[in-house]
Amino acid sequence: MSSDRLPSRSENFADWYNQLVLRAELADYAPVRGCMVVRPYGWALWENIKQELDKRFKATGHVNAAFPLFIPRSFLEREKEHVEGFSPELAVVTIGGGQELEEPLVVRPTSETIIGHMYAKWIKSHRDLPVLINIWNSVVRWELRTKLFLRTTEFYWQEGHTAHATYEEAEEETLQMLNIYADFAEKEAAVPVYKGLKSEREKFAGALRSYTIEAMMGDLRALQSGTSHNLGDNFARAFDIKYSDQNNELQYCWTTSWGLSTRFIGAIIMVHGDDQGLILPPRLAPYQMVIVPIFRDEDQKAAVFEAANKMMAQLSEFRVKLDLREGVTPGFKFNEWEMRGVPLRMEIGPRDLEANEVVLARRDILGREGKQKVSQDRVADAARDLLSDIHSNLLDRATRFRDENTHQVDSYESFKEVLENKGGFLRVYWAGSSEDEELIKAETRATIRCFLMDPPDGKGRCFYSGEETEKVAIFARAY
Amino acid sequence: MSSDRLPSRSENFADWYNQLVLRAELADYAPVRGCMVVRPYGWALWENIKQELDKRFKATGHVNAAFPLFIPRSFLEREKEHVEGFSPELAVVTIGGGQELEEPLVVRPTSETIIGHMYAKWIKSHRDLPVLINIWNSVVRWELRTKLFLRTTEFYWQEGHTAHATYEEAEEETLQMLNIYADFAEKEAAVPVYKGLKSEREKFAGALRSYTIEAMMGDLRALQSGTSHNLGDNFARAFDIKYSDQNNELQYCWTTSWGLSTRFIGAIIMVHGDDQGLILPPRLAPYQMVIVPIFRDEDQKAAVFEAANKMMAQLSEFRVKLDLREGVTPGFKFNEWEMRGVPLRMEIGPRDLEANEVVLARRDILGREGKQKVSQDRVADAARDLLSDIHSNLLDRATRFRDENTHQVDSYESFKEVLENKGGFLRVYWAGSSEDEELIKAETRATIRCFLMDPPDGKGRCFYSGEETEKVAIFARAY
Repeated sequence: MSSDRLPSRSENFADWYNQLVLRAELADYAPVRGCMVVRPYGWALWENIKQELDKRFKATGHVNAAFPLFIPRSFLEREKEHVEGFSPELAVVTIGGGQELEEPLVVRPTSETIIGHMYAKWIKSHRDLPVLINIWNSVVRWELRTKLFLRTTEFYWQEGHTAHATYEEAEEETLQMLNIYADFAEKEAAVPVYKGLKSEREKFAGALRSYTIEAMMGDLRALQSGTSHNLGDNFARAFDIKYSDQNNELQYCWTTSWGLSTRFIGAIIMVHGDDQGLILPPRLAPYQMVIVPIFRDEDQKAAVFEAANKMMAQLSEFRVKLDLREGVTPGFKFNEWEMRGVPLRMEIGPRDLEANEVVLARRDILGREGKQKVSQDRVADAARDLLSDIHSNLLDRATRFRDENTHQVDSYESFKEVLENKGGFLRVYWAGSSEDEELIKAETRATIRCFLMDPPDGKGRCFYSGEETEKVAIFARAY
Repeated sequence: MSSDRLPSRSENFADWYNQLVLRAELADYAPVRGCMVVRPYGWALWENIKQELDKRFKATGHVNAAFPLFIPRSFLEREKEHVEGFSPELAVVTIGGGQELEEPLVVRPTSETIIGHMYAKWIKSHRDLPVLINIWNSVVRWELRTKLFLRTTEFYWQEGHTAHATYEEAEEETLQMLNIYADFAEKEAAVPVYKGLKSEREKFAGALRSYTIEAMMGDLRALQSGTSHNLGDNFARAFDIKYSDQNNELQYCWTTSWGLSTRFIGAIIMVHGDDQGLILPPRLAPYQMVIVPIFRDEDQKAAVFEAANKMMAQLSEFRVKLDLREGVTPGFKFNEWEMRGVPLRMEIGPRDLEANEVVLARRDILGREGKQKVSQDRVADAARDLLSDIHSNLLDRATRFRDENTHQVDSYESFKEVLENKGGFLRVYWAGSSEDEELIKAETRATIRCFLMDPPDGKGRCFYSGEETEKVAIFARAY
């Protein structure tokens, strides 16, 4: 680890982010342009994210499977909007086993097409429906401007792909998965999100309708953090996915897809982090607590280590790191684990031993205010309470921050003025066209993040066109 | 599911295998030549394998991470044997984002090279060692003759990559992982294996020494089921992986790699399966038990379903499938779940209700002998005992089969005669050369599977060269 200071978050957010990802050893640049290596600390975070999502997927009847990395190029061309959307971003294999291939293979940018092909083969009858499959894998989209976790050529995600007998069931599934993403974001990652519908301009290439969860980052920009698409019968028609209904008549299926990626790690970093570094949400943190023993000589060391090991045994329900490194000071360890975002630190030294106590220090509240002495007999109870409290505090803080930086505007003038002087999310009535959206983006770099679900606002006038509407949109500059 | 009979295992083993993989819905052929789709039932089996291995890796201090799919072609060329071994099998990306790439990218066939590059960057001091990283991913090796699970262009595996300060530590790690594979194979999959060293001819391209676990399939052929490589300082020198030792002098690291793949699913199928289909080892089976309710009319149905749900609640520690499908007979369900290898079946009908009993039927012992009536109050205890017993029985059976088909021979004449008339494993003293090995393979299609570790045999004469030696080899025809 470098001993230089981390750049300040408020002065240079982008630099702070890039440096922090590297120093915290979450990820590193790969020797292939645009690719990343996810290091063990970052991958442990992703494994915890996976586990929490997977639990929710399985509880709603989904099963996992694996589909090939390679897709025949011709498959992509069967759905017109899909191929238009993905063509510019493809990595293409042209040589296999030393031979030029007759048909080039695309490295999957997403798997709707190859899954459509297989579903057409597997689904015969209404009894085979619904098919509810999820996949954990990586996909490749050639990117020119990359940023670790947020935009890389290869990234890790899950992609769910389901097939249903009716449009209504597909829509219900799409919304169910959107709600699961929002629930996961708030309950596990302490990241508050707006749920909503994407505009026509921003929807997934080939979808009928795309839903999204959108979070506000610490620099007031938006991050699309998970999406759920109702694909209508577009892919069913393109790949001939049909079932025979109860009357023995052939019908097209209705399909959905939904995904959440390692991008979400970027959201965790940018929603919670501060000038000291990461603050990881307790339910996902690779280490929920670090124990730092403090001692001056060998006698003290033996006693302190023994006590630390006793504490470890009491904390078996948590993910705990016992930092026994020698040759670095406790202060160095404090700084390092603060930078790496461990939610709770236990300090244990000779004076604590005498008093049968330990010190617990919160990462979300630094300094004396976040420290407390706890009897050694009740560290597990104290840790449970504190971790729960840290989660709530992170969620409250982030929600307050987002709400304080969400501004209602009713004219394009005030839109531009607020965006320029305050930034953040702009909440507006919207009845404009895709062309209007394009013009606003060209002038302000802000895009529609989503149309809010069930907005409580009633009717109002579009800030841009003046037309009356019930649709409420969130505009923002986004990652 | 097709209603045709499964081909007989003894009459046509290859056909039996291929049909079974498809019918049991473990995997399917992908639309890209040589690739497979792993279907939910097969993937659930792989997830259970992953979980058991991952537990063992983490218990021995390993952590997971992710490295890129793409490797610059030049990286492979840095280790001479490595590039020679893998060049003929590469898939190459030549186009990215619509542009011809300056340097083609290889889709990883294995990750030693890109990991070597990163380790050289991360490792500075002896304090950074050992580095103990494992990766769960897929790799691509262009194959001309493919077979589901056993040999596909893309396959799923884990690859462990470690770096150490000394040769001895690297060797210790290599052996530790070999032992973990053998332990996993026997304790979880009920697959008995021989542990041993690969011959020079069969070792990993770039390794100093490769160890393997070898299992005997139901057709008497061998399957290499997991390998662990001591890479010496070969990759450390090729990628300049160095550390400063306690005297501040730069030293090369010593590295290892080890892997176990979806091929292992092939071993499970071919070791345990019978003419009725799969027999899945209880500790890895996606469903450990299936409950089939039996009834004639709606009244019976309601009572039987209620009892079946009560049984489910008692069996929460197991993975249980409750088969409530209507429109297919209990007999059809029995056959289907037998074919799909569920270790234990619970039958529950009106007469069982009256007697407060259920019937439990073992998959490993078909017919009346494998059936027993159990009081409804003690189904969990009975299931626990039976599953444990099924595991032991499968392991015993497979061990007996292997031992009965392992033949000690002491001349090339008897080698050929036994191989032709009996097949199986040939246990021999071996002091021959790589050329001798090549000649034997050309004449008999048998290869050295491994040299046994610590053979108890003492010295003897090489069956081929007549030279005296302590080395005991297992020869066999292999997948």
